[in-house]
Amino acid sequence: MTRRVAVIGGGSSGLASIKTCLDEGLQPVCFESSDDIGGLWKFKVIYQSVIINTSKEVMCFSDFPIPAHYPNYMHNSLIVDYFRMFADRFQLTRHIRFNTKVLQVKQRSDFSRSGQWDVETENKDGEKEKHIFDAVMICIGHHCHPNLPLHDFPGIDSFTGKFFHSRDYKTADEWRHKKAVVIGIGNSGGDIAVELSRVTKQLYLSTRRGAWILNRVGNYGLPLDMEFNRLVDSLKSILPHNLFCGLVESQLNQRFDHALYNLKGKTVAPGTFQHPTVNDELPNRILSGTVQVKPNIRRFQGSSVEFDDGSVVEDVDLVVFATGYRFSFPFLASHVVSVSENKASLYKYVFPPELDRPTLAIIGLVQPLGAIMPISEMQARWATRVFKGCIKLPSAASMLEDVQCKQETMAKRYVSSQRHTIQVDYISYMDEIAELVGVRPSLPRLLLTDPRLGLNLMFGPCTPYQYRLRGPGKWAGARQAIFTQWERVARPMQTRPCHDPKPERSLKWLLAPPGKHNGAHREKEKESLIFLT
Amino acid sequence: MTRRVAVIGGGSSGLASIKTCLDEGLQPVCFESSDDIGGLWKFKVIYQSVIINTSKEVMCFSDFPIPAHYPNYMHNSLIVDYFRMFADRFQLTRHIRFNTKVLQVKQRSDFSRSGQWDVETENKDGEKEKHIFDAVMICIGHHCHPNLPLHDFPGIDSFTGKFFHSRDYKTADEWRHKKAVVIGIGNSGGDIAVELSRVTKQLYLSTRRGAWILNRVGNYGLPLDMEFNRLVDSLKSILPHNLFCGLVESQLNQRFDHALYNLKGKTVAPGTFQHPTVNDELPNRILSGTVQVKPNIRRFQGSSVEFDDGSVVEDVDLVVFATGYRFSFPFLASHVVSVSENKASLYKYVFPPELDRPTLAIIGLVQPLGAIMPISEMQARWATRVFKGCIKLPSAASMLEDVQCKQETMAKRYVSSQRHTIQVDYISYMDEIAELVGVRPSLPRLLLTDPRLGLNLMFGPCTPYQYRLRGPGKWAGARQAIFTQWERVARPMQTRPCHDPKPERSLKWLLAPPGKHNGAHREKEKESLIFLT
Repeated sequence: MTRRVAVIGGGSSGLASIKTCLDEGLQPVCFESSDDIGGLWKFKVIYQSVIINTSKEVMCFSDFPIPAHYPNYMHNSLIVDYFRMFADRFQLTRHIRFNTKVLQVKQRSDFSRSGQWDVETENKDGEKEKHIFDAVMICIGHHCHPNLPLHDFPGIDSFTGKFFHSRDYKTADEWRHKKAVVIGIGNSGGDIAVELSRVTKQLYLSTRRGAWILNRVGNYGLPLDMEFNRLVDSLKSILPHNLFCGLVESQLNQRFDHALYNLKGKTVAPGTFQHPTVNDELPNRILSGTVQVKPNIRRFQGSSVEFDDGSVVEDVDLVVFATGYRFSFPFLASHVVSVSENKASLYKYVFPPELDRPTLAIIGLVQPLGAIMPISEMQARWATRVFKGCIKLPSAASMLEDVQCKQETMAKRYVSSQRHTIQVDYISYMDEIAELVGVRPSLPRLLLTDPRLGLNLMFGPCTPYQYRLRGPGKWAGARQAIFTQWERVARPMQTRPCHDPKPERSLKWLLAPPGKHNGAHREKEKESLIFLT
Repeated sequence: MTRRVAVIGGGSSGLASIKTCLDEGLQPVCFESSDDIGGLWKFKVIYQSVIINTSKEVMCFSDFPIPAHYPNYMHNSLIVDYFRMFADRFQLTRHIRFNTKVLQVKQRSDFSRSGQWDVETENKDGEKEKHIFDAVMICIGHHCHPNLPLHDFPGIDSFTGKFFHSRDYKTADEWRHKKAVVIGIGNSGGDIAVELSRVTKQLYLSTRRGAWILNRVGNYGLPLDMEFNRLVDSLKSILPHNLFCGLVESQLNQRFDHALYNLKGKTVAPGTFQHPTVNDELPNRILSGTVQVKPNIRRFQGSSVEFDDGSVVEDVDLVVFATGYRFSFPFLASHVVSVSENKASLYKYVFPPELDRPTLAIIGLVQPLGAIMPISEMQARWATRVFKGCIKLPSAASMLEDVQCKQETMAKRYVSSQRHTIQVDYISYMDEIAELVGVRPSLPRLLLTDPRLGLNLMFGPCTPYQYRLRGPGKWAGARQAIFTQWERVARPMQTRPCHDPKPERSLKWLLAPPGKHNGAHREKEKESLIFLT
């Protein structure tokens, strides 16, 4: 029995979904509205200089490590290159219909029995087509529509400067010697503020709530996300919540004191967090005064901007609204998945709980503290197994209960905001879904049977390879990929011979045993070939 | 008896010298070849984006704090603004003859008796003039001539791309999507590499010896140079040299592992240091691969560059020689001050030891680990007191011995290089000269008579105000300036009301007592007015 699956969108989540369908013996047909793969990374919200904020060993697809010589934090062009390698390696492109937009996705009349969907598409010549699918995977991400809340900014009509949403920002050049205000201190807002501040006369960064700032470059220069591990993650559950938050805050303040920099948020409730912003350069720009942090904007008047503290900046040339995105599913009837205020009621962020048949999955609709690609992939592995009937979903009632419960947990932890509706913790969420798929690594067993691997899983970074060690979709290269991950971290920097004989303390114990990693170039070449062919 | 002093150059050292002459009742005449003050900071080596790498409380003139609201690390335009305030406040400009070049400085025939100098100048209309001065202060700095060692780069004649010295670099724009190599990892090389890497297709940073990289943003976000204090400085003398170096290295590697990043130098001798490079963004650029660290260049051929490890980069569009500067005194006979290989034989970097009369001083010819402005000022205070006869120099023989001794100490500590010929440690050197001038603060006495001040001097940053507490040039505002220095650090960041009631631990104990610094805005306004009027 061949089952046809519609995959909507050819970005990172779409590619992972096609690949997973093929792995599971399903027949994917992917509809991509543009003429290339890559989605977001190829076409949208991409100002020229964007560099991803998750590192290569943590963001990669779980059975396809990123080439050893690639940098740890990749420029957007390299990310698209990686997607292309991935698509080539698993021959995904032949399953994609480019320049094809999905107009409607509708349950068939016999849906409660067949679980089938009518999918209507349109190609660039305006030709429409109807298809029947056994299942649908929606992979359009959550950066669908720029959120431009102009009604919250009195006087914006009178503003004589230019304003646009961060997605329309391309380069800083034309704003040289001008005055600019960036609204919002998310990742885009932070990046754009820093970039503009290098050329503008003055850059103001307006934030209502402040932010916690993380660095890409962690301790000893290792990628920060390689420092998170199951041990740290478990502290979150073991320690009292306020103590845990206190520890995190003190860590974050060691880099720079968020109160001194006036970035610290109003404390809504002790231990209430915001999604942190990744920005390595912001502290330095603030200390040199080229970025000035300001509160929320009260009103615009002509060319001047008045802030909530009463301060006024005159002669503003540019305002960038880095105010995020909203998601929606315009091709889907609202009773299938209802979205309001950027909230969608989905079982573990994937399945609409109240459908008669579990044949519709939303892939990649999460905002993780960590990388999104491996999460999309894991969701796809789960969804396809559900489509095939290998995994049964619980009753609608218990799914709704789970949804409710998750929303409450997040509401306790995060400031209420559009930004935090789809917040997940990387490790807990991956483990949760992996458990359902049957691919969650068993730490106790590994510590007994393969202690080196077990220790790596416990104290090392939670790289996606861990979810290919056993169960459906098991990959023979997974163990080796884990043992060589630190070499792939170090490799791209080995561009100058360095006469230091000792491997540094910070890496030593996590690296492959001495015989191995001193075993030089040729050995490593071989390894990286394994992972590339 | 009025004594006329020629001050050559109207940059930061020149301004400090004019001011000091006036303080000491001497009559300065400053010759500045351009039409404005500011020297280096106004006219030379200044690509648009340069931000100074010493913080405002550490770099200021000792009786003229930088305005409270100025950022801690100032853009070059703000530095010139500060110089202008300084010149206005002490009415220095009236003593400057702009557009006037010094052609020759020559001992008069009766020099051994009078100590006088013939000074020949030329204005921009080509009119020459001769003057007689009782003393001369040479304030032309050490960024005199770009060092462009083309003979060390075989094949450079065949190179088809563009190349120039870092001083000719202005902005990155025109190198978008090109390939560029920067040679040298000093402050300019690092800055230019980082800036270019944001737009180039690929940026290669070639370094023979590697470098230690420091950040402007120190622990808890405080300016790094505010962390150095007399206590840390004393460790240098107390601890065994190798242990001290080990501690410093381990600190530096905590930020990022210099061996992992292949920036670590060949260990010439254990505990041999290089002047560190200040760069907050380099680690992040290396981790994202946009800057690739390479070894020395072996040769050029057409558009390709071959490095010492045999690797070749093709199609290079630009090579920037960030290979530093040489200094010289073309208007001075070589027997007065002989310079070879960027070495000048000067008693404590100021006085030529073999002159019959001590009426010639070189001001600002140092490369400190710290700020240069307060050092120039201290040298000027010493020199003017020597000119006046209030301070006697030792015999030529003992001066030569001191020069020899200093050279040997530095040779032990630093890699032999043109870069390290005028290396001084900020605190030790300042204390050394201050002792001669009679303005070195007496810590033991202060701890007894004014313990709060004493503790500040011991554990707080070594800000220049400390050298105005007593002795000639004593300033009544010095004590208060020390107590309010942390407020001036925090102030420029107070651009957004932050609802955090507690001052953070990192600052608390060094700030003025609670009644004071919570005493809010008006109080602080008053203080900053004291320092500005």
